[in-house]
Order: sequence, then C-alpha cells, then structure tokens
Amino acid sequence: MEKILQGDKILLGVCYYPEHWDKSLWKNDLRRMKDHGLEAIRIAEFAWNLSEPREGNFNFDFFDGFLEEARAASMSVIFGTPTATPPAWLTHKYPEVLNARIDGALYRHGSRRHYNYNSRVYQELSARIVEKTAEHYGKHPAIIGWQIDNEVNCELDEFYSESDSAAFRKFLKDKYQNLPALNNAWGTVFWNQTYTDWEEVFVPRLTINASVNPHEVMDYIRFVSYSARKFVKMQSDIIKKYKKADDFITTNGMFSNLDNHLMVKESLDFFTFDSYPNFAYCLDQEPWVGSSGLKDRMWSRNLSRVRSVSKRFGIMEQQSGPNGWNTRMEAASPRPGQMSLWTMQSIAHGADYVSYFRWRTAPFGTEIYWHGILDYSNRDNRRLAELDNIHEKVTRIANAAGARYHAVFGVLEDYDNQWDVRLDAWHRRVHQISDEGLFAAAQLLHSPFDYVSLGDSADPAALPTPETLTRYPVLFYPHPTIMTAERAALLENYVKNGGILVLGCRSGYKDPNGHCPMEKLPGKLRDFCGADVVDFSFVPPDEKPINISWNGTEFEAAVFNDILEPIDGAEVLASYKNGWCAGKAALTMRSFGKGRVYYFGGTFSKDAAAVFIKNLKLDEPFRQTIEAPPSVEIALRDGRDAKFYFVLNYLN
Amino acid sequence: MEKILQGDKILLGVCYYPEHWDKSLWKNDLRRMKDHGLEAIRIAEFAWNLSEPREGNFNFDFFDGFLEEARAASMSVIFGTPTATPPAWLTHKYPEVLNARIDGALYRHGSRRHYNYNSRVYQELSARIVEKTAEHYGKHPAIIGWQIDNEVNCELDEFYSESDSAAFRKFLKDKYQNLPALNNAWGTVFWNQTYTDWEEVFVPRLTINASVNPHEVMDYIRFVSYSARKFVKMQSDIIKKYKKADDFITTNGMFSNLDNHLMVKESLDFFTFDSYPNFAYCLDQEPWVGSSGLKDRMWSRNLSRVRSVSKRFGIMEQQSGPNGWNTRMEAASPRPGQMSLWTMQSIAHGADYVSYFRWRTAPFGTEIYWHGILDYSNRDNRRLAELDNIHEKVTRIANAAGARYHAVFGVLEDYDNQWDVRLDAWHRRVHQISDEGLFAAAQLLHSPFDYVSLGDSADPAALPTPETLTRYPVLFYPHPTIMTAERAALLENYVKNGGILVLGCRSGYKDPNGHCPMEKLPGKLRDFCGADVVDFSFVPPDEKPINISWNGTEFEAAVFNDILEPIDGAEVLASYKNGWCAGKAALTMRSFGKGRVYYFGGTFSKDAAAVFIKNLKLDEPFRQTIEAPPSVEIALRDGRDAKFYFVLNYLN
Amino acid sequence: MEKILQGDKILLGVCYYPEHWDKSLWKNDLRRMKDHGLEAIRIAEFAWNLSEPREGNFNFDFFDGFLEEARAASMSVIFGTPTATPPAWLTHKYPEVLNARIDGALYRHGSRRHYNYNSRVYQELSARIVEKTAEHYGKHPAIIGWQIDNEVNCELDEFYSESDSAAFRKFLKDKYQNLPALNNAWGTVFWNQTYTDWEEVFVPRLTINASVNPHEVMDYIRFVSYSARKFVKMQSDIIKKYKKADDFITTNGMFSNLDNHLMVKESLDFFTFDSYPNFAYCLDQEPWVGSSGLKDRMWSRNLSRVRSVSKRFGIMEQQSGPNGWNTRMEAASPRPGQMSLWTMQSIAHGADYVSYFRWRTAPFGTEIYWHGILDYSNRDNRRLAELDNIHEKVTRIANAAGARYHAVFGVLEDYDNQWDVRLDAWHRRVHQISDEGLFAAAQLLHSPFDYVSLGDSADPAALPTPETLTRYPVLFYPHPTIMTAERAALLENYVKNGGILVLGCRSGYKDPNGHCPMEKLPGKLRDFCGADVVDFSFVPPDEKPINISWNGTEFEAAVFNDILEPIDGAEVLASYKNGWCAGKAALTMRSFGKGRVYYFGGTFSKDAAAVFIKNLKLDEPFRQTIEAPPSVEIALRDGRDAKFYFVLNYLN
Repeated sequence: MEKILQGDKILLGVCYYPEHWDKSLWKNDLRRMKDHGLEAIRIAEFAWNLSEPREGNFNFDFFDGFLEEARAASMSVIFGTPTATPPAWLTHKYPEVLNARIDGALYRHGSRRHYNYNSRVYQELSARIVEKTAEHYGKHPAIIGWQIDNEVNCELDEFYSESDSAAFRKFLKDKYQNLPALNNAWGTVFWNQTYTDWEEVFVPRLTINASVNPHEVMDYIRFVSYSARKFVKMQSDIIKKYKKADDFITTNGMFSNLDNHLMVKESLDFFTFDSYPNFAYCLDQEPWVGSSGLKDRMWSRNLSRVRSVSKRFGIMEQQSGPNGWNTRMEAASPRPGQMSLWTMQSIAHGADYVSYFRWRTAPFGTEIYWHGILDYSNRDNRRLAELDNIHEKVTRIANAAGARYHAVFGVLEDYDNQWDVRLDAWHRRVHQISDEGLFAAAQLLHSPFDYVSLGDSADPAALPTPETLTRYPVLFYPHPTIMTAERAALLENYVKNGGILVLGCRSGYKDPNGHCPMEKLPGKLRDFCGADVVDFSFVPPDEKPINISWNGTEFEAAVFNDILEPIDGAEVLASYKNGWCAGKAALTMRSFGKGRVYYFGGTFSKDAAAVFIKNLKLDEPFRQTIEAPPSVEIALRDGRDAKFYFVLNYLN
Repeated sequence: MEKILQGDKILLGVCYYPEHWDKSLWKNDLRRMKDHGLEAIRIAEFAWNLSEPREGNFNFDFFDGFLEEARAASMSVIFGTPTATPPAWLTHKYPEVLNARIDGALYRHGSRRHYNYNSRVYQELSARIVEKTAEHYGKHPAIIGWQIDNEVNCELDEFYSESDSAAFRKFLKDKYQNLPALNNAWGTVFWNQTYTDWEEVFVPRLTINASVNPHEVMDYIRFVSYSARKFVKMQSDIIKKYKKADDFITTNGMFSNLDNHLMVKESLDFFTFDSYPNFAYCLDQEPWVGSSGLKDRMWSRNLSRVRSVSKRFGIMEQQSGPNGWNTRMEAASPRPGQMSLWTMQSIAHGADYVSYFRWRTAPFGTEIYWHGILDYSNRDNRRLAELDNIHEKVTRIANAAGARYHAVFGVLEDYDNQWDVRLDAWHRRVHQISDEGLFAAAQLLHSPFDYVSLGDSADPAALPTPETLTRYPVLFYPHPTIMTAERAALLENYVKNGGILVLGCRSGYKDPNGHCPMEKLPGKLRDFCGADVVDFSFVPPDEKPINISWNGTEFEAAVFNDILEPIDGAEVLASYKNGWCAGKAALTMRSFGKGRVYYFGGTFSKDAAAVFIKNLKLDEPFRQTIEAPPSVEIALRDGRDAKFYFVLNYLN
Repeated sequence: MEKILQGDKILLGVCYYPEHWDKSLWKNDLRRMKDHGLEAIRIAEFAWNLSEPREGNFNFDFFDGFLEEARAASMSVIFGTPTATPPAWLTHKYPEVLNARIDGALYRHGSRRHYNYNSRVYQELSARIVEKTAEHYGKHPAIIGWQIDNEVNCELDEFYSESDSAAFRKFLKDKYQNLPALNNAWGTVFWNQTYTDWEEVFVPRLTINASVNPHEVMDYIRFVSYSARKFVKMQSDIIKKYKKADDFITTNGMFSNLDNHLMVKESLDFFTFDSYPNFAYCLDQEPWVGSSGLKDRMWSRNLSRVRSVSKRFGIMEQQSGPNGWNTRMEAASPRPGQMSLWTMQSIAHGADYVSYFRWRTAPFGTEIYWHGILDYSNRDNRRLAELDNIHEKVTRIANAAGARYHAVFGVLEDYDNQWDVRLDAWHRRVHQISDEGLFAAAQLLHSPFDYVSLGDSADPAALPTPETLTRYPVLFYPHPTIMTAERAALLENYVKNGGILVLGCRSGYKDPNGHCPMEKLPGKLRDFCGADVVDFSFVPPDEKPINISWNGTEFEAAVFNDILEPIDGAEVLASYKNGWCAGKAALTMRSFGKGRVYYFGGTFSKDAAAVFIKNLKLDEPFRQTIEAPPSVEIALRDGRDAKFYFVLNYLN
C-alpha cells in the first residue's frame, strides 16, 4: 500500500463511496482508479448505519467486503469515522443530540451535521461507534490512515442546544471559578446583565436586535472551538489505541469558530484541506469571490492558511467537477485545464497529497450536482483525460515532496482577533478590506507570503518562538485590535532584533475579553510603535475617498482613518490629503533597535497594500528568474536538491 | 336561471358577499347587476360561521334569505363551500387543524388558509359543514353550481403540521410497502439518512441550510398534491349526493404543488381560473412580471395552461379594479380599457364564463384595497361604464362559445418536471428562461400554442394518447429533465409518425424519483434524439454570452450549454462560437421515420425561441388575414360556423 | 444644585454610569464635568441589580455612596428607574416577564428591553423597585428629577407574550363590552374571522403572509400604546408620593406605537428627547436618511415633533461621539463642529437642557462603540475641547431659555393616521413621500413650521381648541386617510374663520376603525373641501412621472393621483398633464367663509411641497433679516426681550 505525506513523493487519491454503488462495480472502479494514477481512497465517513444499523447492533460485513477488494487492488484506504451524520434511529430516539437554531428550534434529520458536540448521549454513541470501528479495522492492511468526522464546523459553526448550554456553564466554571469573575469578564454591569446563579447562564439566545453581550459571545466562540476540539480528541484518543503505528490521523476542511492549530496539535498527525476553487464560479456569486477579481486564485489564500495550520498537509477533497447541491450553489463546470491548475495550486502551496472529490458523481442525494471525476454515466470523459495529464505532471515533480514553500514576508494572525471579527462589525469592516487587499496585492506583485499564527491568547503555549518570527524580514499585522502584553513583547523583540513590523488602523485597543482598557491608543503597542492615535473615524459614507501620499505615490486610506501623532522619535511618512482630517499624520515610522515599525492609519486595500509591498522591496522576488504578468501566480518550493517553480496561469 | 358553460353563449357574472352588506342593499345590488349584464354570482365561500356559528349548531337563515332574493331577481348562484377559512371556535378548540411553518410554528387565526388537509378533525368538520350545506341547498332553484373551498393551495402550498407527517407516513406506506423500498427511492444511503422505523419519517423539517433530501421532497410534493386532491374529492363526493343533476362542481384558481389535471378528472365538471393581470402593475413588482416586458400579456400564458387543465373553463374571478391587501401588493388602477382587454383575453383563450371579482370593494378586512367594480361609495363609476361596453361586446360574440382555441404548435409539460423545478435549482434556472422565452417569442410572432400535459408519471392513466400529440405538427419539450420509458416511447412514436420534436438542454438525466441513472445523456431520449451529450456547463458567471449561429441567424445559447455529438446519422446544425466549448456542436437534428428531432444544447430564451419558431415556420400563421405589430396578441377561436379572431392591443 | 427647564437659562448635562467605573474615578469625573460646564447628570437607569441583587434583597449602598460624591461636587442628579433591563434572576425565575416574537419565541436575557408591560409579576416587581428607590432617594438633596424606564418602546414596539394577549382581551372588553361589537369593529365577517368566545382573541399571531386583520392590528397598536403609558403612569404615581415638590418626572426618547402626547399629559412634567443626528452617517445607511439629502438636518424634523409633544423639553441624550453597537450601526465620527451644530439644533428648536450621551465611552458591553465625550483612554480630546466652546456659546444665550420657536405654518398630525400608516402599505407610500417632502421643502425655503397634533380619536380630550389652530395662517394636513366628524368640523371652522387648509390625496376615506364607509370621497371632508374624488390610481410602475402645472410652475404629482371634480363652487387650479388621467383636475381650491381649502390629488414630494410653500407665500420669512443659502437652517426663538436667530450651517 502506498503511504502519503512521507516526503518522498506527491500522490493522488480520490474520495469513494462504495455504499453508493452496486458491489459489482467495485472491482472495476478500483482498477480504473489505479490505471489513472489514483493511489489512495477516502471512504466511510457518512456510513454509520452500515456498521450499526440499529442501536447497539454492530455488523462490519459491508466494509469487510469492500476492504478486501481494496487490498486485492493494492489500493490504500483512509477510513472515516461516521459522526458527521448520525442515523435516523439515533436522533429520533435522542432529540437532545440535535443542534438548535438560536431561538431553540431543532435542526432535524434530512440533511447532515445536525448534531451538537456536547450531548452526552451523542458523545457516548460516537465514542462507541469509533471504538468498534477502530478495533475492527485498526490493523487492516489496506488502511493507511484515519479521518475523524467530516468537515468539523462545516455548514454551521454555532450550536444552541440545551446540551450546549449545560456544557457552556461547565466551561465557564472551569475558566472563571466564580460568578463575580464571569460578571467582570463579561462586563455584565452594562445593561444590568449581572448573573447571580450559574443556572441563569446560557449560550447566546434570541435577543432583540440579535445583539448578545459581546464578551459572552467571545467566550462562546472559544467554547464552540473547545467543544469541537474535544469531540475530535475523544475520537483521536480512541483510534490511537487501535491503529497501526505508522497510520495517521487527520480531519478535513478548514472552518471557522475553531482553533485548527490547536486541534492539529492535540489530535492529528497533520491537517487535510478541502479545496473547491470553483465556488468562484457559482451563479449566485455576487460579487465574484474576491472583489479583487482574483476568483479561483483566491484559494491560494486558503492554502496559505492551511500551511500555517499544518506544515505537512494534504488535500482530502480537491475539486474535480462542477459543484452544487440540488438547492443551491449552482456552478459552472471547471474549464479545460482548471482541474490541473487547481491541483498544481495545491501542490505549489505545499500539499503533497491531492485526493479528488469524488470518483463518480452521486446519482442521488443533496449533492447530486457535486460532480466527481466521472459523470453519472461512468463513461470516459474530459476530466478523466485531464487526470491522466495531471498524473503525468505530478510524477515528474515527485522530488518536490517535502519542499518548503518560499515566503518573502509574513502576515500575523491570531484567534482572538479572528473571533473578534466575527462579533464586532467595526473590526470586521477593516479586517475584510485588509485581508483581501493584502493577499491580492501580494499575488499581483508575485510576492509570496506565509500566515504566521500567534494562536489563541487563552493557550499560552501557542505563542511562537522569537525564531519563528525572525525568519521573516517583514511582518504585517493589519489590525490587531486585541493585543496582549505577551504578544506586544514578542513584537517589540522582533523589531528590536531587526524585523520590520507593519501595523494598520484600529490596533491594540482591546484585551482578550474584548474590553477596551483605559489606555491611550494603540494600547499595549504604544510603547514601541511610535504612533499616538489621538482621534479616528470611519470614512463618512458621504465622503470622497481619503487619500494619502507616500514616497510620491498617492493611494487611498480606505474605510477607516486613525489620526496619528508621532512619538518617541518616529517620523511622519504621510498625511491625509483631504477630508476633515486633512493634514493630520496618516503613516508613521519609527526606527527601533535594529528594526522599524510602521503604523498606517488606514486599511490595506489592494492599492494601499501594493504600495507597502513595493516600498518595502518585497515585490517580484523572482524577477531574475521569471518574467510574468500579474495574471500569473508564481510559487517556489525549495527542495533539498532543487527548486521547484510553479507558474500558474489563471487566465481562462 | 341562466346556466354557464353550455357552449351556447358567453356569460358574465360577479363575486358577491351578501354578508358584507346590510340586507337592505341586496335587492338593489342584484337588480343593478342584472341591469349591467351580470347573470350569475358566486357566494358564500368564506362564510362558515353564518351556517355553523358554534360547533354543531347549524342555522341556514342567512343564505335562505339571500337566495330567496336571488331567486326573485332571477340571478343564478354558484355556492361555495366554506372550508378555506375555518372559524375561530374551530381552530381554537382543535389547534391540530392548523398548518405549520417548517420549524413547527403554527399559523394562526387572523388571516385565511391556515388549516391543513390532513387533520382528521378538520376533515370531519369540513365534511359535516359541506354535507349540511349541500343537503340544505342542493335543490335550491337559484343554484346552478358549486365551488369547492377557495383557491386550493393559494397563499401557501406547503404543509408541515403533525397531521401532515402522520398522513405522509401513510402515503409512503401505500406507495412503498416497506422501508427498504423507501430508502432506495430516497437514496438514503447518501449522508446516512437510512430509515429503520416508520416513526422516524416526517414531512420535511428544519434542516441546516434548508436542504432536505431531494427525493423525499419529490414525494412530499406529490403528497401535498394528493392531500389537496383528496380534500377536494371528499367535498365533491358529498355534493354529488345532493346537487341537482345538471348543476356543476368546480373550484377556482390554479396553484402549485397540485396536479390540477387529475383534480379536475377526479372531482370537478370543469375548472375555473382567477385571472388578475394587474399583478403586473404592483408597485413592488421588480422586475416587471416577465423580464420580457409583456406585463399583463403574460396572463395569456396562465390562460393557456388553464386550457390544458380543462378544455371547458370559466373565469371565477376576473380582475375589475386595482388590487392590494392592506399589507402588500399595492397596485395601480387598471387603465381605461384594461378591464375590457383582460375580459377579452380570457375569452380569446377559451373562457365562456367570466365572473368579476367583486361587485363592490370590501369596506373592511385585509382585502380593503382589492377593489371590485364599484368603489366603497357605491356610486356609478368608470369601471361600471366599462362593464356595459364589455357586455355589449360579449353579447355580439355569443357564437364563439364552445369554439376551440387555434394552436399551431404544442408545448409539452408534465408534473414530474414541474415538481423537480421546485426542488432543483439547476433545473429551475433553465426552466425559467425557457418557460418565459418560448411564451414571449410565440406571442411576439403571433404564433398561438397549447400546453399539452403528460400528467404525473405516478398516474399512468395521465399519459395522453398518440392522437393527442399528432394534432400538433411541432412539439417543444424544453427541458424534460425527468424522463420515463413510457414517455420516451410516446415521443419516439410521435416523431416516427411525422412529428417534429424540439428538445433543450438538460433533457433526460433523471428518473421520476429524481435519481440520475448510470446512462449516457440524454438518457432515455438518447435512443432516438440523435444527440450524445458528452459534456456540459452552466455559462460561467464571468463569461460573455455564448452564441451560436443557425441558418445565418446568430443567437444566444443562454444559461446552460450541453456539448453535443451527433449520433445515429444526425447532423450538426450549429456549433458554439465562443467560450471554452467553441466549435462543439450546440444543435443537432435527426430525421427519424417521417419526422425530425432537434436537440438544442441551450435554453429557449426569447431570442433563441424566436429563431426556432421562425425556422420551423410557425410564425405569423394569420399573416394572410391580419397584419399586426408585435405589441398585439392575435388569437383565433374556431367555431362550427365561424372563426372568431381576437386582436388584443396591450399598448397602454 | 442647578435645576433645569426653569426658563431662566440653558443648561448642559451629561449621562454618567458610576457603576461602569472604579469608585476612585468618581470624584475626578464629577469635578472635570463641572469644569467643562456640565451641571447635571442622569444616572442609574440600567442598574436594578445594584439595589436589588437578589429578589427582595434591597441595598442602597452603591448609589448612597455616589450621590454623596455628587452632592459634595454640587452636581445635580436625574435618577432613572431601572425597569428597562430586568435582572437575570428575574427573567430566569419568571419567563412570563419576557417579550416574545410574533411566532411565540421568547426574547431572552443578554441584551435589553426584553420584557413586556403586561406581565403581572413584572408590574409588581417593577412597582416595588420603583417604590423602594423613590422612598429611599426621594428627598436626596442632589436629586433634581426622575427619569422613568429608558426609551419606552425603543428597540421593539411590538409585544406578543401571553401576558399581552390576556391584557389585550381585557383592553378589548373595556372598549367593546361584548363580542358582537368587537366583531363589527374588526369586520370579522370578512374571511370568516368572527369570534364567538373571548378566549379565541389574541394579540396578532403568526399568519400566512404576515397579514393579520387590519382592524385588529389598529386596536393592537392602541393597546401597545395604552400598555406602555400605563406602565409609565404606574411608576410616575409611585414617584410622586416620594419626590421633593419641585423635582420633575420625565422619560426620554420618542418612539412609535405610543401616544407620547397623552403619556406626557398623564405622567410627566415634560418630555426629554434623545437626539442622535449621526445616524445619518452610519455606513449601512442606504440611502442616506432623507432621500432629500438633508442627512443630520433631518433631526430638526424630530425636534419639531418633540416640541409638539411637550412645549417645554430637554435633550436627555445628545450625541457627542461616533455611535455603534458591536453588532451594528457602524458610524463615522462627528466631524469637527458637528457636536456644536447638533447642540444648537436642539436649542434652536426649543430645548433648554442638553445632556450629552455619555461622559466616557463604555469600555465593555454592546455599546462599546457608542462613544461619549471622552474616549476609553480618558485623555483630553477634540470633543472635550468642543464642549468648552459650546458651553461658552450657551452661556451667552442664556436668555433664550423659555423663548418660543417661531413657526410660519402648521402641519397637522394625529395618532389614528400615524398608526394606520403602520399597518397600511397604501397609506404608508403616500405618507412617506409627503412627510419627508414637506419637511425638506420647508427647510430649504427657510420656512419654519410646527407639528400640531389632533391626538388619538379614542381620546376626545386630545382635540385641540380652535384657537390652537388659528395661530397658524396655513395648515397642511397631507393625507388624513382616517377622518372623524369632530375633526372635520374643527377644520371646517378653521377655514371658515380665515384659515388656509391644504389637503393631499387619499384624504378622508377611513373611519377610526380603519373601515371605509359607503361615502363619496373624500368622505367627511367632502362637505367643505370643494373636491369630489371620482377616481384614483397609484402611478403605474411602468409610467413616466405624472406632472401638473400651477401658476406656471410644473411639478410632479408623485406616487398617487386622485382624480378630482370641483364641487360647491371650487375652481380647478391644475390638471394632470399626462398619463391616462391627462386633462383631469389635480388641484382644486375652494374659497369658504374667510378662508380657503386646497385639495391636491398627489403627494407633497419635495418639489411639489416647495411650490405650495411658495404659492402660499410661506417661504423665506426672514428675508428682511438674513440672506442665507438653502444649505443653512434658520430658526428663530422669540423671547420676551429679544429675538434669537439660529443660523445652522450643515455643510461639512
């Protein structure tokens, strides 16, 4: 059996659902996969009933039979635990297992992911099916690894069942020990929300104007992440007891309200991503994914984030056909060449395993239009032919396996601020502009970068070492609204030792609870960043664009404007040119130690970000080797023995 | 008493609500109606309380009194059963009677149609009030016919009460006998939805992303149709026991999730429609009904469908004034002449009875702005004057009664695909374009057509005879996504015998359960249609219009493109001119037997449909007789002794 | 302690939340407020838990301590009752206290205003906390007045709890005595909605298409107003027992579904308003508040309405910084000078007390972005400097206190029509155009006016005296859809005695129940207004603008057109120039007694209203004194000894 992610070659695989097809098709399907270069399959992740058709009745005949075929075909198998789709008998008997809408209405059987992580019954029944499955198949020779659940937090990443409220209470007791501490953290003195008994505490519930206490929501998001991680770890711990020593454990997809870094650290050998760039071509996609016009190229941003989560990673589901449910997400077919392009995009960003979704299109069910490589008809088709071409290419670059993605700068991220963006409309407005703008500018200037995570402040072990940062000559940290003393110290040290740090507006005014301490802005960053934020405003909706000029280039300080005064010897590099803040400082720079800190009072829209990338000499690092238009992405994987350049042409 | 729909004359009538007015007004109202040419009235359809003010207390004094006035005035009466608005005492005592939202919240008293068809209590109480009413009034000399309920499935055509789940279970047991058969039909192996006990089966319920198993939804829609039909038949069976021999039974309006053809066959003497073309002038109508700009002229499409449902038909509610509820549907007043235009539109399409809604505008209630002929003030007005003019015209064309609408081609429809459109966003996108485009092109080219129904595949008796089809030299069947062997055979036979069949993209890939069998596309049509669909795509949202050229005319293959290869001797008539499918076949034609089959890989947008109509020589069939601009509709009713041309000018 | 609204000077104050800050800050905060000219503070309105941390446990230490500081600082205090935010212990123990969504889902703890006015438990616990508080603090020397609750009916002005249904039933029994009377008033014979038992009657509930019986809704809105007023009066009656003789009682904000005039008369010494003109600069404000482009200047309309409610009034919350919750209402910062502008706008319209919201921005909670004068940091800032400037100006115009706002015409309003607008989409469309158009035209022509309320017809005492009307040479009453005989007589008398009355389309066709009596339009106004409305229509959505020409000026009769015929010697001043009503009368004028009545068949859009204001010689009344562009508002307060002109420049 071929193994994956060993650093020795790049492998292709595919997702397969033996239960969707007559058994008579299995043998031919497996042979045909191998003939076309697919070396591994992922199976079983939605198949609880096949092993436990009634509560407590276990029967493994079905996958016993299939795995025997796989073994005979020398097909490597990744086996999925089935907890993403509880059986009808389960949710009907135990409705407490169901997730609920914020107003309490239960999500029911008929789709998927309608369970909550905190129901004790569901935890027990999930543990049992995982235990039975792992025990039965742990040593099976065809199996090379395990996938836990499927797309944790996909579809919905909010949980409002009664089980969740009970578990939230426990989570909060562990965190705060007593109610006064909780009341303080949640600022409940505002609007008289003080709790006097633990039983009064719930997950967020229906409120007027859908505005629950923001500090409660911050804890709630951390709780959702904790619940998901715990659910995954419970399964991982069980599987570890039974799996073969060098079989891996992973899960797939990358979703929100979830500390993926910590989940990987706690429970997984590596992360796998589900990459569907064709979402950019859904018919109701308006505006196109990325107002920047980057369309499928935006998925390079996702892949960069995956690389941050898991240095080694694979693609468990790589798009191979048009996508769509029967109810939504109607999408065009990938154009000729796009399947190749997206495969190479994944590999360019570090994936050493690429598994397509799915072998053959489902003939029934909600995903009837989520096309696989093959159409309903099973005939040879354009996509199968393209797979042959891909396989040929991948074979030629086997040595790229294990090679590191070459980044010329870093972008700092952390979970505190990611979660704050979720609950804070002010933060969200500036974040969205910069998150897209910085990525787009870097793409168009062929300036590859890494996301570098500072983790969640609630997890002190997540703080990276100074060395992790110093690998990057420049770090952007666009809008670290929430700042801690530890992170500020790390950043100060980075600069002192020669790093260049670039900050944007709205930095540093919140603590990890989401409170705004009585500090001059930008809070804990003010000690070394050289900027005093004396005033600020969203750009008024009736205002013309607010521009600034730096080194002779004029660009917009979009959406928000911090009004700065230089301190500690910082210099003003640019001022606002119009609006009521005309003449006030918009960009300061302080030389500090061996490094420099820039504080920019605006957001990193695509144009603004491009100016920073150019002025910091981060653009076109490959100019000596490759001359390419902006429409092309350039990526480099630095191998031990060779450099692998990926030049990806996104023009249709 | 005048009778209606006897084929001898065209009659006018009006809807009247004696309960809304002081009794002192009745005599004058009836006399004034007759003076203005109104020969029949529809009454009593929202008046349960007047006959059963408390449960089990029956009292017929009110309508006894009114019918005596009607008889004295020689006014023919159509009597409505009151089941569309259950009394407050009923729903308060029996909340199980209420319909529910998909999340379980009950729809309450305060509006109308808040009941479900499957509550046993409601069935019993409805049967009793119908029985008591029919028994009491069955032989009344003023009565000429009966209307069951009011606008069945209007307002809402989805039902989610507990009674519905219980009845759905029974419906499914009758259909499938056992759960394995149901599991197979619903493809429950997908996402582990397998049912192991009937009690686990429900009508669709709240799910994440509002995406219930599509095959379940297909059965559910059939179940809603079945429930509505059964409710109507229950009433019809009762009325038949008591009514006079030549009194008719009908119901009014034409709504979705309902097999109207079968309902008429099972329970009604004929169908009546409620025609409100002024919906095109609602202020929130955006874009105008019909992106084609046809506005009120779009109602000819509805009338053509009514003609398919019921060869003989009337208009129970014909718009006579501005429409609107107090909460919604604010609309302009009909312009001078529009009341005449719309009356003639109904008659042109085959209606021999036209009854206005309503005599005088309601002075209270939700429909306070649903104006009748008369205003609140009861004064003579513009609309009453227009009625006199209409009456004069109608009298002159009495001989048109019974004359058949002249169609030069047919458009095939069936319930399977109509219901699939409801649940399938992919199908819906192509259907909507062609449904409107084909109608609009035919209108503008003065090319009258009939809709020809193939019924529901679950009702084998619905399949029309070969002769029904051969009456049409050309049949369009734009997107028969669901195809059965029986229908394919019927179509093949039609072509073999000289018919011309035109198919559009996305044909034939589903079975009546909504599964996609492992067949080459277009599935069961592939045997004779001459086209092999080897690839396909929605037109990508970032793509320019995809054009094709046929016989020198260039037009768009909008929204979707099947990529064709000709087989069985078919020829390629046109290829895609741009996009990634450039050069691939877009339109094939196979001569087969005495006929021909066209397969078009796109949708019948207005421009595309016009090319087909012209190239198939279906345009301007009346060119020898009438020269008219596109803004005018031409219809012909072929009488035994004369031809009646209707030339309808929709220009304001 | 300074008192407010004594007519002797104009005072500034601020909202303060001692519970949000460490006690060590109190003394400095109070001193700093005084230093900057703030003479009074409003406190305690969201602080129930501080006095009753557990049910029945009362403890006044907290505010005892703070008030001692206030007294020592000679700071006047307005004390708020805490009923807008019930404690967690309360709503958890008594969920009946919660408000509900129309489908029955309860609004929960976690935000604010989640209670209903009709829960008996809540009334008892509210009465008790108010009684305990008033008893304890009634004689405190620092206190100068009381605020009841906070922003009554803010956030949500609809209540659907079970307590509300029970109270609604009682309200209706008091009003109608028996069900036949209720059935008649609600027109329940329409759609068979007749009630046969009081237990069948509820507040509006979930119905299909969200369309509850409109007459029921009318009574329901009156009931909501009644419930709110009763809740306020309950508190006012208690406070009166304990407060010092010359301390005042007020409440703040001006919200809908509430007869503010009657609330003031019953329970308050005067009204205070919360003025937030920066809502015009929210980022999701689309289109800008006021399609007229008046932005923050639109708040002069609100202030004019406050002046109608309460001749003497203050501003309890005057915007001092950018506004926003964490979840919504993201807004720009006030530009330099806007804080001054808005303060002067309030004073120009009659406010003699202006209290800013709030001293320092909340460091936590949902309103973390509802900035006060000071930022989180507490540093001196731009807004504090602007406050000094404001204080200096206000001191200079102390004599303006008590001076009357100078109006050159009046605009009639009443609660019947205000409530009808809420439930009637037809009425709403014409109301919105004229409500904004008339205000905007008057602003741009420097033509100051008063709103003059005719109250609610259910409160006969609300009808103003004839003298109240004759103070205005011209009265506009744009769309008095609901008209009573008493009001018609008052208007007829006004005209007879020399007044000029201007009416718009859709006048007079409803009674206070919302029924449309069998009368010629415009109903009770037809006797003297000189116009017979013989036909009418919304302007069709496919129509070009319908214009008329009066005295040589052409303007649009937008949205709706009554078609008129002059009667009783009236003359036609203008006719429709296009559309199907071309040539029909659009504007009539009847000289009657010493006065005149104009009936305009359209709406008072900005352009139409400007023509009326000019033709009636109401424009530029200050032209002898001040020459100013339209972008400037001019207001005059007529003092005993001096005239105070306010020239407000809204240009940014």
